[in-house]
Amino acid sequence: MPTLSVFMDVPLAQKLEGSLLKTYKQDDYPYKMFLAYRVCMTNEGQPWVSLVVRKTRLQISQDPSLNYEYVPTVGMASFLQASLELLFGKHSQAIVENRVGGVHTVGDSGAFQLGGQFLRTWHKDGQMVYIISSQKEPHGLVFRDLGYTVYEFCIWNPKQLCSDSNVLFSVVQQIPRGCILVIGNIVDCKLSLGQWAKLMGTMKNKQIFPFFDIPCQGLYTGDLEEDAKILQYFVSHGFEFFCSQSLSRNFGIYDEGVGVLVVVALNNQHLLCVLSQLMAFTQALWLNPPTTGARIITSILSNPALHGEWKQSLKEVIENIMLIKEKVKEKLRLLGTPGSWDHITEQNGTHGYLGLNVQQVDYLVRKKHIYVPKNSRINFTCINASNIDYITQSISEAVHLTGGAGLRSASSENK
Amino acid sequence: MPTLSVFMDVPLAQKLEGSLLKTYKQDDYPYKMFLAYRVCMTNEGQPWVSLVVRKTRLQISQDPSLNYEYVPTVGMASFLQASLELLFGKHSQAIVENRVGGVHTVGDSGAFQLGGQFLRTWHKDGQMVYIISSQKEPHGLVFRDLGYTVYEFCIWNPKQLCSDSNVLFSVVQQIPRGCILVIGNIVDCKLSLGQWAKLMGTMKNKQIFPFFDIPCQGLYTGDLEEDAKILQYFVSHGFEFFCSQSLSRNFGIYDEGVGVLVVVALNNQHLLCVLSQLMAFTQALWLNPPTTGARIITSILSNPALHGEWKQSLKEVIENIMLIKEKVKEKLRLLGTPGSWDHITEQNGTHGYLGLNVQQVDYLVRKKHIYVPKNSRINFTCINASNIDYITQSISEAVHLTGGAGLRSASSENK
Repeated sequence: MPTLSVFMDVPLAQKLEGSLLKTYKQDDYPYKMFLAYRVCMTNEGQPWVSLVVRKTRLQISQDPSLNYEYVPTVGMASFLQASLELLFGKHSQAIVENRVGGVHTVGDSGAFQLGGQFLRTWHKDGQMVYIISSQKEPHGLVFRDLGYTVYEFCIWNPKQLCSDSNVLFSVVQQIPRGCILVIGNIVDCKLSLGQWAKLMGTMKNKQIFPFFDIPCQGLYTGDLEEDAKILQYFVSHGFEFFCSQSLSRNFGIYDEGVGVLVVVALNNQHLLCVLSQLMAFTQALWLNPPTTGARIITSILSNPALHGEWKQSLKEVIENIMLIKEKVKEKLRLLGTPGSWDHITEQNGTHGYLGLNVQQVDYLVRKKHIYVPKNSRINFTCINASNIDYITQSISEAVHLTGGAGLRSASSENK
Repeated sequence: MPTLSVFMDVPLAQKLEGSLLKTYKQDDYPYKMFLAYRVCMTNEGQPWVSLVVRKTRLQISQDPSLNYEYVPTVGMASFLQASLELLFGKHSQAIVENRVGGVHTVGDSGAFQLGGQFLRTWHKDGQMVYIISSQKEPHGLVFRDLGYTVYEFCIWNPKQLCSDSNVLFSVVQQIPRGCILVIGNIVDCKLSLGQWAKLMGTMKNKQIFPFFDIPCQGLYTGDLEEDAKILQYFVSHGFEFFCSQSLSRNFGIYDEGVGVLVVVALNNQHLLCVLSQLMAFTQALWLNPPTTGARIITSILSNPALHGEWKQSLKEVIENIMLIKEKVKEKLRLLGTPGSWDHITEQNGTHGYLGLNVQQVDYLVRKKHIYVPKNSRINFTCINASNIDYITQSISEAVHLTGGAGLRSASSENK
């Protein structure tokens, strides 16, 4: 009798994502294009790496004094300090008061995993997680796997083709007391200071625990401070919160998953307690964080010349993105594409919505071999001089053929 | 009224380990010594790094063709292939039959975390974990945190000063049907092929699921095949199992936590199902594994010349350890220390039991500032030409002063 497998009841897992990429890879058409890469691309269609990263990596690998011993579970002290100062500014009130700390995690998934584990144990009121962002975030999965009930909200309004701050207000209104609110990329939600104050007032009354996500500081507006400003608001209003900080994307070292779970507490005593408990969870997760990425980043951030070079490289990326978006918009206008395309340049960052409907996206994928996700959120750095004409031409065709559904009319916008 | 902290009920976590290191660091005595480092040390008292690793690291950082994009969640295919071939041999039956696979994990803790999560969901019979090893393993904590009931067993017999294979048999006898048996470092348990067959027969009858731990292949006997031989036995007897493979220690890149959760299934179909489910868990844990360590290791393993250099460097480490142990034993003998010290050279690997009792260890720590864990299991590579005399002199003193409790008598051994 043949032995039965221990794994006989294990089914093939459904792929959670990547099916678009899979279809793209299976496509034999020689001029196919994939516009949904996660990473920032160069004009040459290669993943972007800040030049200063290459230089620093080489320098580190030539350093004979370095050993590769285990680093502490919490991470290298110098790395954590540099990361937190980048996020809050050197003279941040919370840093001066010694009530901000962090744990080096394996990427931002690691940060949400660790934070989620901690909150499950030590914040029992909040077993519901509300996530608000400009797109569906992978962190929903992390919280769901940990047993949380997860509700997700997107600030992008596909009818009006803009980020809608009302979503933010309505979520904060409906969210039950004591819940966890994951605040993703909402840079495009332009709120006045007064609106922020109102929002924070409601959150405080309802004891909502904020868990921020800063996945690519500097790659939204090109201004490092501006991209993390939301944290300052919450610090100055006396909030305690978690924040997932990823440093992989803004340095272009995607393959190292350098993250920090940032903790802001009311005082140093609470901070130390929280960090000590986080250590216990980290020991079971991966024991010691991987350090190559952290070493590179620390070397850059703690050296003013390198730091300057890095900031400049970020600025160039952002200027390039702006230029691409302007060109896409202009070409669509010249092609007489119906509707206003201002939403393209109104969105910040590498990724943004084209504002196409499912039918139009389907046309691009099937007829034009241009792989765009169903929600039409693309990575604009995938567009460059050699493909922009084909892409804009195809978008224009798609809109002409299928009608301008979901588009703001140019006339109403240009008033 | 001052705001109450969200974290007000969070206590300071008890340190799970590292208290000996902490006491050592607080000790002001200039000639203090710490003999319990986890990593392999050189004769100069520095963490060991295989020379070929430094060279390869430099080479990789100079490669302009490399981008640092995300690698697949499962890990780089070339890395996984090289790691599995190292573990099982290129011509392993299971590899040829395409029923061995792996997932790149963050260190061995990551491998146990991932494997533990999978088994909790898909191997519901086995919610009890038995761990057997030559020392207390940190993985117990991982399984406990996941909700398993954990029982730990040590093969070291402190009275008889040897590894006791009876422990292995008695654990397999008492373990309930369908449980998980984590088999750690039991290289020192010399079992005949017949004994292995008997053991595996019982395990098969009771449907015990083996979860092996190969934390430093090549650093026990100096022979890569010999150190992973146990896996071959289980493969050839048709077992399905998991194995945590760590490649950090045997390459000397401790700070990268390069691990693999190895899966052996009855056939390729089951393997693919298991790997697909593991992907889902990995996505929530860290999404993409860090690659620097994996790149270095893959470059070395897939290049025959570098592979040879690496093997040679392992051999040198092992020869050096043997030499240190011989010298320690000889010096203790010359000092007229009561008892037989053969157990020192009888143990394989960097770490081993001195065979001292708590009183003797206490004497070393308090009077001699030589920091040795309570169970007297030390890292022999912490002993070198410049401290061996002080250390052996102190051990001898400790034994003379407190009596030879726990030691085999030299006479009974020399018969």
